[in-house]
Amino acid sequence: MSPIKLIGFDLDDCLFDSTGLSERARIKGLYAMIDLGLKIDKKKAAQILGEIVREYGSNSSKHYNHFLRRLNQMEESVEFLSYNDRYKYIAGAVMAYHEEKVNSIQLYDDVEKSLSRLKDLSIKTAIITDGIPIKQYEKILRLKIDKLIDLVVISDEIGIKKPNPDLFYYCLKKFRVKGQETIYVGDRIDKDIIPANLNNIYSVYLHRGGKYDSYEKDIKIQDSFKPDYEISNLNELFDIIDEINKKGSKG
Amino acid sequence: MSPIKLIGFDLDDCLFDSTGLSERARIKGLYAMIDLGLKIDKKKAAQILGEIVREYGSNSSKHYNHFLRRLNQMEESVEFLSYNDRYKYIAGAVMAYHEEKVNSIQLYDDVEKSLSRLKDLSIKTAIITDGIPIKQYEKILRLKIDKLIDLVVISDEIGIKKPNPDLFYYCLKKFRVKGQETIYVGDRIDKDIIPANLNNIYSVYLHRGGKYDSYEKDIKIQDSFKPDYEISNLNELFDIIDEINKKGSKG
Repeated sequence: MSPIKLIGFDLDDCLFDSTGLSERARIKGLYAMIDLGLKIDKKKAAQILGEIVREYGSNSSKHYNHFLRRLNQMEESVEFLSYNDRYKYIAGAVMAYHEEKVNSIQLYDDVEKSLSRLKDLSIKTAIITDGIPIKQYEKILRLKIDKLIDLVVISDEIGIKKPNPDLFYYCLKKFRVKGQETIYVGDRIDKDIIPANLNNIYSVYLHRGGKYDSYEKDIKIQDSFKPDYEISNLNELFDIIDEINKKGSKG
Repeated sequence: MSPIKLIGFDLDDCLFDSTGLSERARIKGLYAMIDLGLKIDKKKAAQILGEIVREYGSNSSKHYNHFLRRLNQMEESVEFLSYNDRYKYIAGAVMAYHEEKVNSIQLYDDVEKSLSRLKDLSIKTAIITDGIPIKQYEKILRLKIDKLIDLVVISDEIGIKKPNPDLFYYCLKKFRVKGQETIYVGDRIDKDIIPANLNNIYSVYLHRGGKYDSYEKDIKIQDSFKPDYEISNLNELFDIIDEINKKGSKG
């Protein structure tokens, strides 16, 4: 029997509401432009920005530039933006966006307690995440969980990106543990569950109700892609740990 | 006689202590790394960072990366920084740096009153500055002077950079005023005074005691490069305006 020695977590939308925070921050940026004098209906503005995020991706750093360019293409607003106003609006939007991101980032309610409890149980913890290393670490520091996590694995730091299972294997090697001594918690079948399964890690799908929480709808998924467990609160992890420790290692 | 109709200002180190703010913010970033666990003497750290700023320029966005790389080259600290710690330190430093920049930016004491007084006198105001447009506008918004300035001319927006005198001519055209109806206030002989003089604008050298405040030492400067006036407080501008308005236009 191999007891659980390590639990890995995805970061965004798993430990905190990353998608929701970004959406709120983007809207704050829009409202800042309106406060600075941009003449546009709030609802219409949100709709246009939504289109831009879908077209250019949520990680683009140029959402507000594209937004204002698109306004300039709309017949009723030709000439209504001078170059000068444009930069004022973008600067104001970016300031408000970052302020919201800095001030409103917060853990899901169940995270801190669960991480502390794992520490008490001497189970090691890791975050395995894609993204820009400094940005990801900034989130971890602002969420104040750096002392509660034993290792942070950021794909751009290692040169192996999700869903490559080698990224998860890297983490196992770092802790000198086996897959069957490990649980991984994520919210993406493709990027979290499959690479965990391929490493013989116990995979746990965490339902946070967010944008990517679509597992239940995917009925035609093959068995080896399915998570070993599904939870909607990290507290449920401890029952899973008990169950695994009792029944012995993964087959 | 042409009375003064427009006053242009440089932004950084003229309306606020830009160099000092950046220096303070960089040090805050260093201290954040030390708080996160980086083992280095504060004085030694500041000295190394100073070297990096001199070598890579004050506008590099990679000061802390270079700083940690350089530490890793120093014999006594080989291996002491894991990759993981490196990103934690950089993220912490960048957060502290930006926090200081956002929270501590402030106008020189004489600015707001002088700009209001110019508004009361119906004299138009402009800022003419180099730099990244969004960054420069962010400073203007944080300094809360956007309502007190009639036009912001940012060189990267126009495609003409200081010391090209055409940037100043662009501003004159925008207001439909002549050089002899205009005063320009700056702290650089090369980037402010000379292009103002070439446009027949009254040039005012503002001594703020900062890094570039070296005019008095340049004794071998040719006459056409010299400022028409030297001041150390914007209040003195009003005497200059009176004097010019009395004596008539620049020859």
